[in-house]
Amino acid sequence: MKAVVFDGKLRVDDVPWPCRAKGDVLVRVSTAGICNTDHEILKGYMPGFSGIPGHEFVGVVEEAGEPELVGRRVTAEINCGCGTCELCRAGMQRHCPDRTVLGIAGRDGAFAEFVCVPAENIVRVPAGINDTHAVFIEPLAAALEVLEQTSIGPEHTVLVIGDGKLGQLLALVMRSTGCRLRVAGRHAEKLALLSDAGIETLRTDRLGEQSYDVVIEASGSPEALQDAVSRVRPRGRLVLKSTYAGGVTVDLAPVVVNELTVIGSRCGRFDAAVAFMQSCPLQLERLVTATYPLDRALEAFERSARPDSLKILLDMG
Amino acid sequence: MKAVVFDGKLRVDDVPWPCRAKGDVLVRVSTAGICNTDHEILKGYMPGFSGIPGHEFVGVVEEAGEPELVGRRVTAEINCGCGTCELCRAGMQRHCPDRTVLGIAGRDGAFAEFVCVPAENIVRVPAGINDTHAVFIEPLAAALEVLEQTSIGPEHTVLVIGDGKLGQLLALVMRSTGCRLRVAGRHAEKLALLSDAGIETLRTDRLGEQSYDVVIEASGSPEALQDAVSRVRPRGRLVLKSTYAGGVTVDLAPVVVNELTVIGSRCGRFDAAVAFMQSCPLQLERLVTATYPLDRALEAFERSARPDSLKILLDMG
Repeated sequence: MKAVVFDGKLRVDDVPWPCRAKGDVLVRVSTAGICNTDHEILKGYMPGFSGIPGHEFVGVVEEAGEPELVGRRVTAEINCGCGTCELCRAGMQRHCPDRTVLGIAGRDGAFAEFVCVPAENIVRVPAGINDTHAVFIEPLAAALEVLEQTSIGPEHTVLVIGDGKLGQLLALVMRSTGCRLRVAGRHAEKLALLSDAGIETLRTDRLGEQSYDVVIEASGSPEALQDAVSRVRPRGRLVLKSTYAGGVTVDLAPVVVNELTVIGSRCGRFDAAVAFMQSCPLQLERLVTATYPLDRALEAFERSARPDSLKILLDMG
Repeated sequence: MKAVVFDGKLRVDDVPWPCRAKGDVLVRVSTAGICNTDHEILKGYMPGFSGIPGHEFVGVVEEAGEPELVGRRVTAEINCGCGTCELCRAGMQRHCPDRTVLGIAGRDGAFAEFVCVPAENIVRVPAGINDTHAVFIEPLAAALEVLEQTSIGPEHTVLVIGDGKLGQLLALVMRSTGCRLRVAGRHAEKLALLSDAGIETLRTDRLGEQSYDVVIEASGSPEALQDAVSRVRPRGRLVLKSTYAGGVTVDLAPVVVNELTVIGSRCGRFDAAVAFMQSCPLQLERLVTATYPLDRALEAFERSARPDSLKILLDMG
């Protein structure tokens, strides 16, 4: 089958079909999305990862142990726990120390014609959610994760830093809480998308003196991090949504002096994302910059790395 | 009067008596304690601070607007808010942006024969708490602050990193919660003090692989910080009690990937510390390494900077 392969270098190649292990489901991928984490992998964020990247996807089940699954339109939770450790038994497979992660760690991902995933990770996509929206289930779940970790409501002022893919989704999620929301970014067109959705925006370089109850850092820029720390009111909360390749220097004095709570936030629950999509019309097509066929994946990655790009999709055709 | 003065350099000098402002109380200092923050000030942690340091003290009221205060044995909350801003009105004077802090920012401290403090900061020291214990009210309040910010109980495993002054107090506070407690340190004698109190200890360089529900970083060492991050279980909590002069480099990836909550923690409530002292026998004398007269304060500071020292007291005589 055709697939995007990373082994220190990225290429499109012909590779053997994945071998479906017991308990796995084979999915014919329809569409997949390129995420910042994919670019971080290319920069070495997951040392030792080689194989097929890709963890945002929708497809149709081709083979499964449970026959009623075959032919269903699905996506899949990306963390595959060992199933036996304390964390897995507590329902925290996403934090299993021996986990593999689809297209990120120890397991081939979805930038291919076919992908194998454990049956328990499969999430059915309801008919009301089209393929383009379905690719956003994974990143939307990551945005919703913030609300699973900490409570935000109309009484809070919230600043989201970052107008990229994740920042846009966080903005939609935060808007739904009724909080007093502002989104800061550096790209006029991306900020305009938010303004069009009725969300107050400002330029990252013009944050002014205001401080916020909650600041969510989703720009991925290490420089933005210090800015984020200084925008949280005393005893307020800073949510970190970006992973950075390598260490970052931060002056932590304000965290201690102002008694901030810093909340690291990663992947979320797919069921929450599906429910959110079914409740709120989100116009996610507006976040898609371009769609490429699989054999032009390198071009798609280049396009995705450009500062003016939002989501780039791969169509497996 | 005699006082310790810092103006880029530390000296003992004769200075004018403090001028009691309206609403202030003049206290004749009996005993004061040297804290790590005092050493950080000497290193430039509070740029621009010059004057009399010292914020852990006990003394007797010499002059006050309210005559019934005169002659009382007291200590004082160290943060002096503006009294009018939103934070002060919400009872968060400790976070007032225009606050002065006794011996730390914009206000002379207690390493002197006399000190002036706002009457509302005065805390009476009950007869059952002797002068040596009373000097620990401020740092004990800082240790208790952790419990005001986050809940810890018998169901939690807790690692305190740091066997110094603050680490010792944190250990006593954490022990009172019934949590499964370990304290890590680098000094055999200081760890022995904890063992004698029935607290499980280990060497910082032999932390092993175990992770904890809660890790409290109180060693003040930037290197320990990364260690602390890596010892927190997924979705666990890291409490930062140390302020570092200047920025520190931390790899924040584990905070995001493991979805840690990082809680900055600074000063606490004196009333909580007084109540705690009255409820639990703490044997705080064991934490006093030496007591010096005020005119030997430079020697006292040198002694306090030695790695084998715990609390050094200044006796104002």
